Amino acid sequence: MASNFGQLFRISTWGESHGGGVGVVVDGCPSKVALTEKDIQVDLDRRRPGQSKIVTPRKEADQCEILSGVFQGKTLGTPIAILVRNTDARPEAYTEMQTMFRPSHADFTYQSKYGIRNWEGGGRSSARETIGRVAAAAVAKQYFKQVLPKLEVVAYVKQVHKLVANADPHEVSFKEIESNIVRWPDANDAERVIKLIEKVRKQGDSVGGIIECVIRNAPVGLGEPVFDRMEADLGKAMLSLPASKGFEIGSGFGCTTLKGSEHNDEFYMAKGRVRTRSNRSGGVQGGITNGEDIVFRVAFKPVATLIQAQKTVTIDGKNATLKARGRHDPCVLPRAVPMVEAMANLVLVDHYLRQKAVS
Amino acid sequence: MASNFGQLFRISTWGESHGGGVGVVVDGCPSKVALTEKDIQVDLDRRRPGQSKIVTPRKEADQCEILSGVFQGKTLGTPIAILVRNTDARPEAYTEMQTMFRPSHADFTYQSKYGIRNWEGGGRSSARETIGRVAAAAVAKQYFKQVLPKLEVVAYVKQVHKLVANADPHEVSFKEIESNIVRWPDANDAERVIKLIEKVRKQGDSVGGIIECVIRNAPVGLGEPVFDRMEADLGKAMLSLPASKGFEIGSGFGCTTLKGSEHNDEFYMAKGRVRTRSNRSGGVQGGITNGEDIVFRVAFKPVATLIQAQKTVTIDGKNATLKARGRHDPCVLPRAVPMVEAMANLVLVDHYLRQKAVS
Amino acid sequence: MASNFGQLFRISTWGESHGGGVGVVVDGCPSKVALTEKDIQVDLDRRRPGQSKIVTPRKEADQCEILSGVFQGKTLGTPIAILVRNTDARPEAYTEMQTMFRPSHADFTYQSKYGIRNWEGGGRSSARETIGRVAAAAVAKQYFKQVLPKLEVVAYVKQVHKLVANADPHEVSFKEIESNIVRWPDANDAERVIKLIEKVRKQGDSVGGIIECVIRNAPVGLGEPVFDRMEADLGKAMLSLPASKGFEIGSGFGCTTLKGSEHNDEFYMAKGRVRTRSNRSGGVQGGITNGEDIVFRVAFKPVATLIQAQKTVTIDGKNATLKARGRHDPCVLPRAVPMVEAMANLVLVDHYLRQKAVS
Amino acid sequence: MASNFGQLFRISTWGESHGGGVGVVVDGCPSKVALTEKDIQVDLDRRRPGQSKIVTPRKEADQCEILSGVFQGKTLGTPIAILVRNTDARPEAYTEMQTMFRPSHADFTYQSKYGIRNWEGGGRSSARETIGRVAAAAVAKQYFKQVLPKLEVVAYVKQVHKLVANADPHEVSFKEIESNIVRWPDANDAERVIKLIEKVRKQGDSVGGIIECVIRNAPVGLGEPVFDRMEADLGKAMLSLPASKGFEIGSGFGCTTLKGSEHNDEFYMAKGRVRTRSNRSGGVQGGITNGEDIVFRVAFKPVATLIQAQKTVTIDGKNATLKARGRHDPCVLPRAVPMVEAMANLVLVDHYLRQKAVS
Repeated sequence: MASNFGQLFRISTWGESHGGGVGVVVDGCPSKVALTEKDIQVDLDRRRPGQSKIVTPRKEADQCEILSGVFQGKTLGTPIAILVRNTDARPEAYTEMQTMFRPSHADFTYQSKYGIRNWEGGGRSSARETIGRVAAAAVAKQYFKQVLPKLEVVAYVKQVHKLVANADPHEVSFKEIESNIVRWPDANDAERVIKLIEKVRKQGDSVGGIIECVIRNAPVGLGEPVFDRMEADLGKAMLSLPASKGFEIGSGFGCTTLKGSEHNDEFYMAKGRVRTRSNRSGGVQGGITNGEDIVFRVAFKPVATLIQAQKTVTIDGKNATLKARGRHDPCVLPRAVPMVEAMANLVLVDHYLRQKAVS
Repeated sequence: MASNFGQLFRISTWGESHGGGVGVVVDGCPSKVALTEKDIQVDLDRRRPGQSKIVTPRKEADQCEILSGVFQGKTLGTPIAILVRNTDARPEAYTEMQTMFRPSHADFTYQSKYGIRNWEGGGRSSARETIGRVAAAAVAKQYFKQVLPKLEVVAYVKQVHKLVANADPHEVSFKEIESNIVRWPDANDAERVIKLIEKVRKQGDSVGGIIECVIRNAPVGLGEPVFDRMEADLGKAMLSLPASKGFEIGSGFGCTTLKGSEHNDEFYMAKGRVRTRSNRSGGVQGGITNGEDIVFRVAFKPVATLIQAQKTVTIDGKNATLKARGRHDPCVLPRAVPMVEAMANLVLVDHYLRQKAVS
Repeated sequence: MASNFGQLFRISTWGESHGGGVGVVVDGCPSKVALTEKDIQVDLDRRRPGQSKIVTPRKEADQCEILSGVFQGKTLGTPIAILVRNTDARPEAYTEMQTMFRPSHADFTYQSKYGIRNWEGGGRSSARETIGRVAAAAVAKQYFKQVLPKLEVVAYVKQVHKLVANADPHEVSFKEIESNIVRWPDANDAERVIKLIEKVRKQGDSVGGIIECVIRNAPVGLGEPVFDRMEADLGKAMLSLPASKGFEIGSGFGCTTLKGSEHNDEFYMAKGRVRTRSNRSGGVQGGITNGEDIVFRVAFKPVATLIQAQKTVTIDGKNATLKARGRHDPCVLPRAVPMVEAMANLVLVDHYLRQKAVS
Repeated sequence: MASNFGQLFRISTWGESHGGGVGVVVDGCPSKVALTEKDIQVDLDRRRPGQSKIVTPRKEADQCEILSGVFQGKTLGTPIAILVRNTDARPEAYTEMQTMFRPSHADFTYQSKYGIRNWEGGGRSSARETIGRVAAAAVAKQYFKQVLPKLEVVAYVKQVHKLVANADPHEVSFKEIESNIVRWPDANDAERVIKLIEKVRKQGDSVGGIIECVIRNAPVGLGEPVFDRMEADLGKAMLSLPASKGFEIGSGFGCTTLKGSEHNDEFYMAKGRVRTRSNRSGGVQGGITNGEDIVFRVAFKPVATLIQAQKTVTIDGKNATLKARGRHDPCVLPRAVPMVEAMANLVLVDHYLRQKAVS
């Protein structure tokens, strides 16, 4: 297990979907940052189950408690421990998981690696694990409010199954995204996506999609070549999210169809600043931010747990058929939006502090 | 700068394209592994410039010297330092870089971040930096020969510009890939790709493409959730390579067009082993290897340095036109194949040791 | 703040003396280790305040709760979060600390470093912080019970002020140490130490001393030169404990009075094993354990907080006189014994796993 | 092996006493620091063998070469690789080490841990390994010249065998220390120490001693509780040096004889700054520097290799007698002075950058 992330703004997450709870310890957050539980709760609420009709109905308030590191509303510079209790656990809905492996889920690999697993729900592989990430990122966001007030990290659902959103990453607004339950950047177009997800849910099936994220007004100079390039750390962060299968930045996989003369971003001067006319680089050149918008996309597969019969094997190596019960998201994308934002904030804050150290 | 990679099999690379040389220190390699300079040289030769008519003509033998950590042909368990001298440096071909930023290159961001840069060639952002990675990976490969003799890490060029190779990752052979200078998996089809690259070179232009990599016979159980999942660490490794813009594993971005019922990999028993019928997971479930082939793809953009006039700005903030000289690859893909393999081996060896520690 | 310790068996502690509580997250513990709250509680009870008449009377049950990482009495291989609530906080006893710095305490340096501090008690610099360490070490001990059942880590108070215990580290028993409230290795002699501490307490004063620790039956080969030598990591671990001022291993500072010919430990064969006739090395040679008993000593200063008037300055830079209230230990040594043991266990378990990875 | 040190100013050392050479890679050094090989050579010369009649006569110029990371006399912010070739290797003087273990040397433990060792000299356990540390610290010193020009790190031999120097750490000068070949702080008194060492050498024996180090004008606020306290990291750094057996800071082991009321350092105001009247804390309180001189001491054992017959065992487990040849220091102290300084500088620079990141 490696549940630590970040070098200077270091987080340690913990917790299973069923058990005492989930949480995080944030070490390395600068002192004197304004922080209350409310600042964290707002993002946990965007992530929590039961928030709309298209997500899992598991009833979790996901109420957070700050256990340390804050005094009279300010961070102390000491570790910030945040706890969220599990309240609506229903292990009885998972009894068949005790002996059977869900196809494309983590059951088999956890069992193989650890020789044991908490079969009551997804255990550590549950998306519930991301609560700690979202809480930690909320702390980072409070710090950024102080030191980079213009920084914006905005994620949204770009694609669900074959439905693609019309969205300009440089223009899309947080308000519009949050105005609809899919977190679709073109709110007027959201209804057809909602309908698709509802239909899929009724079929006991699931769909995947793509989340796009834009970071605006990041400083020039973040990213640490050669291994901790900005795109490498963003990529790792996103690919560490449950169900992610791909990451691309700027032109991404589409870069292959252009020649260098078509792909290069020309430099020009604007208001005394070096700018690029196009942004196929996605805001990063040579692994370091260039001041343009950072734009990247993350592919999420359809949720593995289905309310359909599937062929599988048992823990004793026998062929079997599994039809899951439990409460599951038919489409992870709407709730993955705050997770993507969270990981982006965590990468940024760590690189911001790393650059501050040497400049 | 963060030129360290790995937690247990730790490498520290160093070196600029112009200057004393490039190299690596490998710390944490187990002792008693058979290792000679020849074992390393074979992979450096696959990476080096001047190896064929479709790569940069820079003449570097890239001859390596093992400076420490090996005694009588065996590793000591102590740090292995490997040095490759730069011999064919021609700083005079880069004088205009002193004052101008190459579009989509790292010149501007390095200058902004560090306030100084070695403008004689690509400096630290040069692909020459990857020599240290390839050398370190050659050490890892020697270790794997002992402990996982059946492990295979095979990469190849899957796409150049719009030309796509016909290749089955489960079947493609190292021998066929190495039989042609593009490292195209279907050797009979390689000539059209060579012609494309030659044409692009004559135009002073460049093209990008996709490298696919397959890892066969990796053990079940490698990967450390939640942050150091196998796909997260592979993704970071690949996105830390110069010119990479995207990474996907298994079904990748294509996963979005399938429903869960179509995407899930059913389990079945075969010869006493749990197997999956399909492999959309790409050999990784829940961040942990499941014993199936690990298959991933990396997108590389067209090389930024062009032998064409391009608009840019100077270090003093004036608009300008740059036509690069120097010696450059019109297509980085053929030489990136051993780099991708190297990073895959480095991720694997680190995770192999990490798993060994706790099991 | 750096509240992380260990590379493979990684702990992250958190918590202030006043506030929600204190605790730890243990990441990297192998799976299938038998673990209950009772296993942890036994060591917390040895550390807790109010355990005897010679320690602080603060009333804390220090009851622990395992929040994650354990399922049906076995570790899952996932992070183990452990929580202990603060219950007997009395911030009102510390109001003068809000404006004054206790001499030789951490008040001034915390205020200078962080620009803020939790003045209600010692905040993060309180010995209460070590609860997380002791809890984490209890987990390590459970693992050792499985893999190294003969391993013994035994610490005891070797000296209090000028009173020195008569003790042979190779013979001293846990039972005898725990039979008296000072944790004096010669129980028959403990009464005079207890009397000294009681006298000092009545004076509102404090005394320091030395803790000696012996590790028996550690495997040969633990320790990672050149920086993570066994003595270096033990030294760091001990010097990270509140109030420690010195560390020595084997002959320690006494080594200076011997010539090489007197100091060297001759090798000889015994029952097929390489042994040393003397043990001035303290069980470590070249930074690596040699199979002999590891013996080291840690100096602890007299507790800084006194119930006496002391000259100091205020937060506004004015000279002042402070007479602390609150509840304090007149001598930290008896309660530091389990802390020393805990840190020794944490160093050992990390090195054990690191060696396992490469051998 | 763990040959990495530091979190932000990260060094990776490598090399055996016999073989291609020794060296270091420094990653994380800020850019634009003035650096030439001469800046490094001056400290290597203070460490090198053959510098005086009381050290080993091995003839090594220890000439360094900067291989990367520097351009036109300034650091680039990229990894700085430094190489020193071994030139006067004489493996033939060590043939008996191939089969026998030197008492109290690292031969046995290296053989046990790694199953192989470079018996030509001390291999990796040789003090020659510290070349990389001294070179890296010379880089740190160049950075400090820019950012903390008043910082002074001064070490000296405080004791050899039973001879103790009369020295006030707050007054002792680098010039006086370097004026005599023992690096004795009271130059007038150095002759008797030189005579002692010469006598011991003639006997084929060795002596140990104590090095004291003072750091003046360090900023307030360095050190990262709870684990990376300043004294913990200094302690680890010093205990990672070959032959060290103990570390103490401020009052150290002597703290035990004082009561709290005698030991505490009273605060007072002086020129608008908070100062302490005494300095039993040794410049560190709560793990964080308080602006007073940092004073610590390190015990070094007598060198293990003797030109005398000693009882030992062979690699096959037979009792044997060994009389070493080779060239050895009769007293490691004079050459350990620059090593202690180096490690102190490396700890300081890392903590300086860490504090810069969050403040």
